[in-house]
Amino acid sequence: MADFALQQKILFRHCDPAGIVFYPRYFEMMNDTVEALFEDALNWPFEDMHRDSGVPTAAINVEFQAPSRLGDLLEFGLTLEKLGRTSLSLRTVATAGPETRLTATQTLVCIDQSGRPKPWPDPVRNKILSLMEGRL
Amino acid sequence: MADFALQQKILFRHCDPAGIVFYPRYFEMMNDTVEALFEDALNWPFEDMHRDSGVPTAAINVEFQAPSRLGDLLEFGLTLEKLGRTSLSLRTVATAGPETRLTATQTLVCIDQSGRPKPWPDPVRNKILSLMEGRL
Amino acid sequence: MADFALQQKILFRHCDPAGIVFYPRYFEMMNDTVEALFEDALNWPFEDMHRDSGVPTAAINVEFQAPSRLGDLLEFGLTLEKLGRTSLSLRTVATAGPETRLTATQTLVCIDQSGRPKPWPDPVRNKILSLMEGRL
Amino acid sequence: MADFALQQKILFRHCDPAGIVFYPRYFEMMNDTVEALFEDALNWPFEDMHRDSGVPTAAINVEFQAPSRLGDLLEFGLTLEKLGRTSLSLRTVATAGPETRLTATQTLVCIDQSGRPKPWPDPVRNKILSLMEGRL
Repeated sequence: MADFALQQKILFRHCDPAGIVFYPRYFEMMNDTVEALFEDALNWPFEDMHRDSGVPTAAINVEFQAPSRLGDLLEFGLTLEKLGRTSLSLRTVATAGPETRLTATQTLVCIDQSGRPKPWPDPVRNKILSLMEGRL
Repeated sequence: MADFALQQKILFRHCDPAGIVFYPRYFEMMNDTVEALFEDALNWPFEDMHRDSGVPTAAINVEFQAPSRLGDLLEFGLTLEKLGRTSLSLRTVATAGPETRLTATQTLVCIDQSGRPKPWPDPVRNKILSLMEGRL
Repeated sequence: MADFALQQKILFRHCDPAGIVFYPRYFEMMNDTVEALFEDALNWPFEDMHRDSGVPTAAINVEFQAPSRLGDLLEFGLTLEKLGRTSLSLRTVATAGPETRLTATQTLVCIDQSGRPKPWPDPVRNKILSLMEGRL
Repeated sequence: MADFALQQKILFRHCDPAGIVFYPRYFEMMNDTVEALFEDALNWPFEDMHRDSGVPTAAINVEFQAPSRLGDLLEFGLTLEKLGRTSLSLRTVATAGPETRLTATQTLVCIDQSGRPKPWPDPVRNKILSLMEGRL
């Protein structure tokens, strides 16, 4: 079970001349999923966060198991794997029905306006921990 | 020394509200670099290749070492690391002057129109081997 | 009253270093709206349509009345203005609450696989007429 | 004769499942052309301009005369049509050899950091006038 999930339909703008998702568009979809996590589950929407903070991706590792086509309905499931003082490791599995399309692991860093790592705000840290503990 | 390099300037369309490159745009830039490799160095431009073939990315692993800003001039250097019968492993290092911005390893697979892996065409395989041997 | 409307939130990927929507992203949002119109209201989802047809934009005219920012919730309202044998003229008004952000007029053309204009399929034509007549 | 021109090749990332340029990508290409105009011809590169100014598009009107395909080499020619105190009207014609692919007219507005129109800086105004007079 994922800690958070977002349904995303494969739209025309995602697809390449081969009729499948152009892989950089998957990163836009993963970013949209993380953005929804922060808004819907962590109560720190990007429009508030970006006044004085940010959560850039420091590293990402993706395997594309099967192609996705126009009209496919994907579920992007996020599992929060490891919470650090200023970082968060996430696992994304995107599936269409029973088929896995991609699996990704990603590290986000919480930064201040000057780009320096800073601790997660307490309410955000607590929400992350609650999500992680919800699985226990 | 990279086997192939492409200069790319950070343009307005690459940048996010924090004034730095939005990370999915780096994957567009890496795709442009691979596209230039196939056209300029391997003599298999995408407009020819995509009549009956493709080279999707099967896996990619990226570390973002430092942010890039509007106006930065980046060099995307590619090193061809491992040539398989139907695959190719690449390493990308993007630098701005002396500073490394990202390091990526990526596996491409040569596929036919139905999406099945197929051997590299001989002339392409030979060009890849020549580039790899140019370093020896 | 619009004939069809789609809510779209301004996400991080839409915004530029000035913190407002980068204007080419509005065209992606307008394309998503047209794509939803064809799926939800005209019963001709793009994944079916694109087997042997398409609906490219032949002309578009946009005025950007006010900027949109990260987190804004926009409603893209479509009014079907003129149905031709092979074309359709649309008007888009995107609003955030009481404020208009952009107004666009656009002409779509129904084409076959070789790119030549072709008449709208009867069921689609009838749905378009129903939507237009719904306003009378 | 255009006042300024930029060559742009149609890349994989520009193309849709029909194998032609996805029309929102043309707006990215037109933005890149304007960005090159400001850097190369007007001596006001975006990375300098965006410290305290911007040049958003207030209105744009485009006709797509013919589709463009992967590998096509396009020339985006700009003609500066009308210089106002705080605005500039441009005409873009994108051609592939003898064939016109799109024609656009566009109005840019020079704004300050709060988004209010402001007069063009004198050196920029003079460069614009020189380009316009170069045609006389």
